[in-house]
Amino acid sequence: MPSAEGELAAIEAIRRGLPAPPEGETWIGDDAAVVAAAGGGSLLLAADVVVEGVHFGLDLVDAADVGWKALAVNVSDIAAMGGRPLHALVTVVGAGAWMIEGLVRGLAEASAAYGCSVVGGDLSAGPCLVVSIAITGTTGALPAVHRSGARPGDTLFVTGPLGRSSAGLRALRAQAAGQGEAPPELAAAYRRPTARVAEGLAAVSAGATAMIDVSDGLGIDLDRLAGASGVGVVLDDVPVAAGATRADALGGGEDYELVFAAPDPERVSGAFAAAGLRAPSRIGECVTDPAVRRIGDEPLQASGWEHRLL
Amino acid sequence: MPSAEGELAAIEAIRRGLPAPPEGETWIGDDAAVVAAAGGGSLLLAADVVVEGVHFGLDLVDAADVGWKALAVNVSDIAAMGGRPLHALVTVVGAGAWMIEGLVRGLAEASAAYGCSVVGGDLSAGPCLVVSIAITGTTGALPAVHRSGARPGDTLFVTGPLGRSSAGLRALRAQAAGQGEAPPELAAAYRRPTARVAEGLAAVSAGATAMIDVSDGLGIDLDRLAGASGVGVVLDDVPVAAGATRADALGGGEDYELVFAAPDPERVSGAFAAAGLRAPSRIGECVTDPAVRRIGDEPLQASGWEHRLL
Repeated sequence: MPSAEGELAAIEAIRRGLPAPPEGETWIGDDAAVVAAAGGGSLLLAADVVVEGVHFGLDLVDAADVGWKALAVNVSDIAAMGGRPLHALVTVVGAGAWMIEGLVRGLAEASAAYGCSVVGGDLSAGPCLVVSIAITGTTGALPAVHRSGARPGDTLFVTGPLGRSSAGLRALRAQAAGQGEAPPELAAAYRRPTARVAEGLAAVSAGATAMIDVSDGLGIDLDRLAGASGVGVVLDDVPVAAGATRADALGGGEDYELVFAAPDPERVSGAFAAAGLRAPSRIGECVTDPAVRRIGDEPLQASGWEHRLL
Repeated sequence: MPSAEGELAAIEAIRRGLPAPPEGETWIGDDAAVVAAAGGGSLLLAADVVVEGVHFGLDLVDAADVGWKALAVNVSDIAAMGGRPLHALVTVVGAGAWMIEGLVRGLAEASAAYGCSVVGGDLSAGPCLVVSIAITGTTGALPAVHRSGARPGDTLFVTGPLGRSSAGLRALRAQAAGQGEAPPELAAAYRRPTARVAEGLAAVSAGATAMIDVSDGLGIDLDRLAGASGVGVVLDDVPVAAGATRADALGGGEDYELVFAAPDPERVSGAFAAAGLRAPSRIGECVTDPAVRRIGDEPLQASGWEHRLL
């Protein structure tokens, strides 16, 4: 897809061409699908692909970074449903033998960090390098948190400052062009993003009504949450990471912080404190008019990129 | 990977670089992984990718065929464990908008045929066309059938005649070169293979000890089953599909018939008859010497291709 619009149109075409889910399940259109599990309860299922030249370039990241990031962004999809990851299937196309060792090292590191076992997958030759991961997860006995549950009056939170990944990509590009060294923290944010699993669980216990991860950019991801929920959003401001610009924070994407709506801010503070987590930042609230997207006195653009390098 | 050896070496590197499964689970190295399900019981997980120029060319198949086949080969992995498919995640890289509609039509047809819902996935731009599918499945209350359970004295069966897909590919290539029309049944075998779900379930109820699907070629797939089980195999002969050669049947692959070992041939006949299925063909037996790979008086080559077009 050359653009976010093209991708959204394609997703709509796919949704129209396939049967709708039965009552109680969610299929296409959230961070993860929620399906009835064979043994009872529900199962979360998600997939995310990274493509060389679209999502990453091997001039800026190494094979281990690709492995880490490919798994971490899938874990983030599970975290955004209020779940924890269980198992992953990893499919690699077009990786030379020299790349496999690094990829596996990065995958193993992320697998250990998130307690998400890589249990299988597929390998193929191919004219381009693609790492496609599918992941399973669970919310245990609790229901999953969808994008669609936010209500007018809910407070909006984000689990950490934004823009670091985008700033990191810019710094790595400058470094590759011989213009100074990228600050390690920014470079790491781009190469080795953190999925916020514990934060997602805390948001659930704090009564979160809707949640999404900041993958494509706060503006576009919040627009999706608001659209799915049928509410408007009014932001006061957003926390901008050190070294990043406000534009990075609003439209950069790939931060993998969680944005969630919840009716009771004190319960949110309490739940995050009880879990030993940094308090999430209150960034605004949900309003009744579903057309509103505002930050301060300005319109909040549904900006962001589906694919960072195209 | 340029070759089966390269792929096997890469899979070994991956297995070495990742933790081993806990007792009672199977991860890398069978048709599907078997993991503990969150809600109790076990879950089958598998992934299979198809790449343009490696597994298919759009001169010989259309987008709907690609969609069908990509899902059917995943269903076949579940069938080969004695399971039935549940849900699929479909990731598409590099498909123009014009292709999506056809892909989705083929996916929807296979989804309906196998009762396997497409519940999510991912879309990306990319310099090559890749369809990567991950699938879940279940064996219900029964244990999965692995490649590794065959014992000396077990009889070997195949669920149908072999070589049709390979002959179909040859006929389609000849047709594309202006040399006559491909016989529809052969063309369909290549374009729209059938996953043998009911046959896999019948094999389970017949006491199958080991099973694999014929994806890469009977010789290489049977070598895998024998190697995993620590037995030798002696074949009398194999059923060759009409229009195919014996070489197609032994090494062509992509037939997606199931090969299984079972100790009691009469029980096998009975189980398939009870399920209203064509009786599987008895093709040989497992022997004690794990080094033996024989068909009649000749050596059985572990032949076959990981990737049909490379």
